[in-house]
Amino acid sequence: RDKREAARRYIVDFKTAAHTGSRRIYLQSADGTVAVPCREVSLHPSPDGSNNAPVPIYDCSGPYGDADYQADVSRGLPPLRADWIAARQDTTFCSTPLSALAVELDAQQGQFQHQVRQALPGCRPTQLAYARAGIITAEMQFVALRENMARAAQQQAASDLQPQHTGEGFGAGIPAQIDAEFVRAEIAAGRAILPANINHPEAEPMIIGRNFLVKVNANIGNSAVSSSIEEEVEKLLWSVRWGADTVMDLSTGRHIHQTREWILRNSPVPIGTVPIYQALEKVRGDVEKLSWELYRDTLIEQAEQGVDYFTIHAGVLKDFIPLTARRITGIVSRGGAILAQWCQLHDRENFLYQHFAEICQICAQYDVSLSLGDGLRPGCVADANDAAQFAELRTLGELTKIAWAYDVQVMIEGPGHVPLQLVQANMTEQLAHCHGAPFYTLGPLITDISPGYDHIASGIGAALIGWFGCAMLCYVTPKEHLGLPDKEDVKQGLIAYKIAAHAADLAKGHPGAQLRDNALSKARYEFRWLDQFHLSLDPDTAKAYYQAALPEGADT
Amino acid sequence: RDKREAARRYIVDFKTAAHTGSRRIYLQSADGTVAVPCREVSLHPSPDGSNNAPVPIYDCSGPYGDADYQADVSRGLPPLRADWIAARQDTTFCSTPLSALAVELDAQQGQFQHQVRQALPGCRPTQLAYARAGIITAEMQFVALRENMARAAQQQAASDLQPQHTGEGFGAGIPAQIDAEFVRAEIAAGRAILPANINHPEAEPMIIGRNFLVKVNANIGNSAVSSSIEEEVEKLLWSVRWGADTVMDLSTGRHIHQTREWILRNSPVPIGTVPIYQALEKVRGDVEKLSWELYRDTLIEQAEQGVDYFTIHAGVLKDFIPLTARRITGIVSRGGAILAQWCQLHDRENFLYQHFAEICQICAQYDVSLSLGDGLRPGCVADANDAAQFAELRTLGELTKIAWAYDVQVMIEGPGHVPLQLVQANMTEQLAHCHGAPFYTLGPLITDISPGYDHIASGIGAALIGWFGCAMLCYVTPKEHLGLPDKEDVKQGLIAYKIAAHAADLAKGHPGAQLRDNALSKARYEFRWLDQFHLSLDPDTAKAYYQAALPEGADT
Repeated sequence: RDKREAARRYIVDFKTAAHTGSRRIYLQSADGTVAVPCREVSLHPSPDGSNNAPVPIYDCSGPYGDADYQADVSRGLPPLRADWIAARQDTTFCSTPLSALAVELDAQQGQFQHQVRQALPGCRPTQLAYARAGIITAEMQFVALRENMARAAQQQAASDLQPQHTGEGFGAGIPAQIDAEFVRAEIAAGRAILPANINHPEAEPMIIGRNFLVKVNANIGNSAVSSSIEEEVEKLLWSVRWGADTVMDLSTGRHIHQTREWILRNSPVPIGTVPIYQALEKVRGDVEKLSWELYRDTLIEQAEQGVDYFTIHAGVLKDFIPLTARRITGIVSRGGAILAQWCQLHDRENFLYQHFAEICQICAQYDVSLSLGDGLRPGCVADANDAAQFAELRTLGELTKIAWAYDVQVMIEGPGHVPLQLVQANMTEQLAHCHGAPFYTLGPLITDISPGYDHIASGIGAALIGWFGCAMLCYVTPKEHLGLPDKEDVKQGLIAYKIAAHAADLAKGHPGAQLRDNALSKARYEFRWLDQFHLSLDPDTAKAYYQAALPEGADT
Repeated sequence: RDKREAARRYIVDFKTAAHTGSRRIYLQSADGTVAVPCREVSLHPSPDGSNNAPVPIYDCSGPYGDADYQADVSRGLPPLRADWIAARQDTTFCSTPLSALAVELDAQQGQFQHQVRQALPGCRPTQLAYARAGIITAEMQFVALRENMARAAQQQAASDLQPQHTGEGFGAGIPAQIDAEFVRAEIAAGRAILPANINHPEAEPMIIGRNFLVKVNANIGNSAVSSSIEEEVEKLLWSVRWGADTVMDLSTGRHIHQTREWILRNSPVPIGTVPIYQALEKVRGDVEKLSWELYRDTLIEQAEQGVDYFTIHAGVLKDFIPLTARRITGIVSRGGAILAQWCQLHDRENFLYQHFAEICQICAQYDVSLSLGDGLRPGCVADANDAAQFAELRTLGELTKIAWAYDVQVMIEGPGHVPLQLVQANMTEQLAHCHGAPFYTLGPLITDISPGYDHIASGIGAALIGWFGCAMLCYVTPKEHLGLPDKEDVKQGLIAYKIAAHAADLAKGHPGAQLRDNALSKARYEFRWLDQFHLSLDPDTAKAYYQAALPEGADT
């Protein structure tokens, strides 16, 4: 109750997520149609009087990162992409959305005025379809500016901070400058996805692929026993403040539809879900009663709301289940366990596999990306890289080809728990079997003995697999295995993963990635404490620790 | 003041550091002369009624880990090794110790009745000298039992939990069973050290080498502006509770000698120091006044007290200093900076290099191990693996050979800040130039942008370099770069490094290393919550997080 009230106050009072010492700037496209938000840290002069150029930082906090923005979560964010979507003339507003029904069933009344779009007959309004057709969308332009971060200008402005070590990219192909054509080509090749449901115009375009900056995802969502809509919205705002590139709403408790509506309308980042969770709620947790029809309607409901990517456990085939029998921890993925149980109860093949083409048809109508779930991921280091895991991975490779045939964007989910020496094989196997589709891993945790600190154990594995080529790292919080993360856990998990993702960028030799390190280190060496704090991942904590160490009465 | 009073109460009330759910057992040598403490976690039966064998855990908490032990820090620990040392008849009590003078100079009167030993004329009572002579000491027997952890019996008792992945050891040679002869041979070859000053009989033998379990070190110590003897003793007790294999006392403030005396007399783990810090205090911080004579007396004073290893920055040669001129962060090692400044003020070669043979002669008399400091280590990722760093490393290789000529045990210190893709070169260069002597690294941090979270950034690098062959990992706490760690920081740093060290053991395929993971994961899968907590690195936090997540009124 206290937490819920605190969360309510937080989100009602919430105006901006801007960090001190930073200002919001916008990188403009040449034709002026696209303005990409970016955080710029201004620096003090060096002791010798020379100036230090401001440092631009990739910023996924959306309008919230602008100190002048006046957020009102009861109204949601402005629909940044609405005009771009409309201008393409391949979608229309839907007169009888399925999700309207869900709202009525829900305990709370719909708060937001969301008008549902759907594809015109025969149209596939996906970024993959456009990319294949040679079309550079506004979203692709946005992403190019965002990833490139005005690199050429920056290189001139801070020439003393440009030295960077040669990276080891394990086959990555990262150009010195990112332009929109490169973005288009990577999407067309299936090596990157730009998750952007036509019904989530509030989200800023971002890209997930090994030749771009490594991204991080934060999981939020309530459970049957805890949390409220207010707390989930609070975690969303907190997530984007601390650098989540995408957020997954894994709610399994009450008001799933309504919670998701609040999240979508207020999220500047793509939102992912695991639709089987809501489907299971609709049958009150009775796995046997799950059916394709129920699931299909859930997909459409969520697609109409604006979910940007679905985790679909279509690779958990009936024949693979016996391969998990000798594991120490069996099947630990919740989605995987649900599907495995369904297969056994019905003695039938996984209905997600059977109906995969129809799933793709739905996704193509809204540009929902697919995140092919690893329902058989290892739940402990002993079970890593086993026959079950890799059998599923090969199936995900087959499914990738099917999705691509429908112009649906795809990424592949990965483990889990993997000891250090087996991490690289996860990446090479994924590349071998999944045709270059982006990899998206949970951790991996490199040991099982650290409950309470699994953000660290998994951050180690995440840094490594990010270096090897994983495109997005799904965070793990200190509460993993023990309970649902609260706001502070979300932050702890995100900081650990921002470290991992950035370490991976540095290791791959991503152009310009080392600039922030160099600028911070120069500030440190010159005792420019405020500059050091402002350039750090968590200025608040760095400053607080420093001040706590000072003799009483002193200040920075 | 409050912290000091809290620390005083903590150490006065301190009786035991035993963890709940564990009991202390002792592994006995066949002849009964050696009893090695070990923590045993007892487990509940599985839901099917089958028993789960208890899991032994390497335990460096000394007598404190025994729930029956009644600690009294004002008297110190029992001198476990006193009889072993005496029985060798190559040392004698010293009638006129240099350190007695230091005690009188110190503001506080000596508390402990420590009788100083020194080598008999012509004798070198070092574990390296014994090993080379083919002698298996009691210390080596102790270490063999400790590292082997009754592996054969364990393999029988918990046969279901034995499966372990094949490791990748990068040339490590770890046998299936560790025996005392293997320990002797590794020490004789210089590939491992057993730091055990004859004046620190309270310490339990432990070994640092790439073919043994990866170890972690915790740094404690006061500074001119903060902390007290009580707080440092508290941090020592806290360090061994949370798994520090060795502790370095880096005190630079008041009462250095007395603080160290309290630490040594109460430490069950080897203690390291950086003697130049105390030498500099003796000349009130005036680097120009440092001299070989002053330094030599400081070494003898500390060797007489019982310091087990000295960090000596003898590789910071005058000619190398210009190599740091174009760095972003110059020289960040405090010892390195002091010596570089001294060289420049006097326009002379580093006196530690010039007098290195005499340093070795002193160390040989007390069996003080040398930790050859990396005074030119990189202080930011930009400066990693540069000419200055590797020039010093090659010099450390030369010095290693000299130390070995005096039967002095040696390890080599390493960086620092290194991006992921350059970590492995640090290990291969160290192996190439330092003749197989154990490597002991600080981190490395794999990015500079995480002040407040550098235990995580460095834990990533530490796991990696431990895997590649680094023998001991010096922790970094959340306060790194910002302030002096307090008790909680010590714990956070240690847990991060226990994760890194264990991850490295798993990755190398250290026999039996995966047992604890497997046991914990089995407990997790069977919802044996208490067993999961007790097997984890921090049972208290795991349990607290779990309970916080439960609905109110529930309990485990």
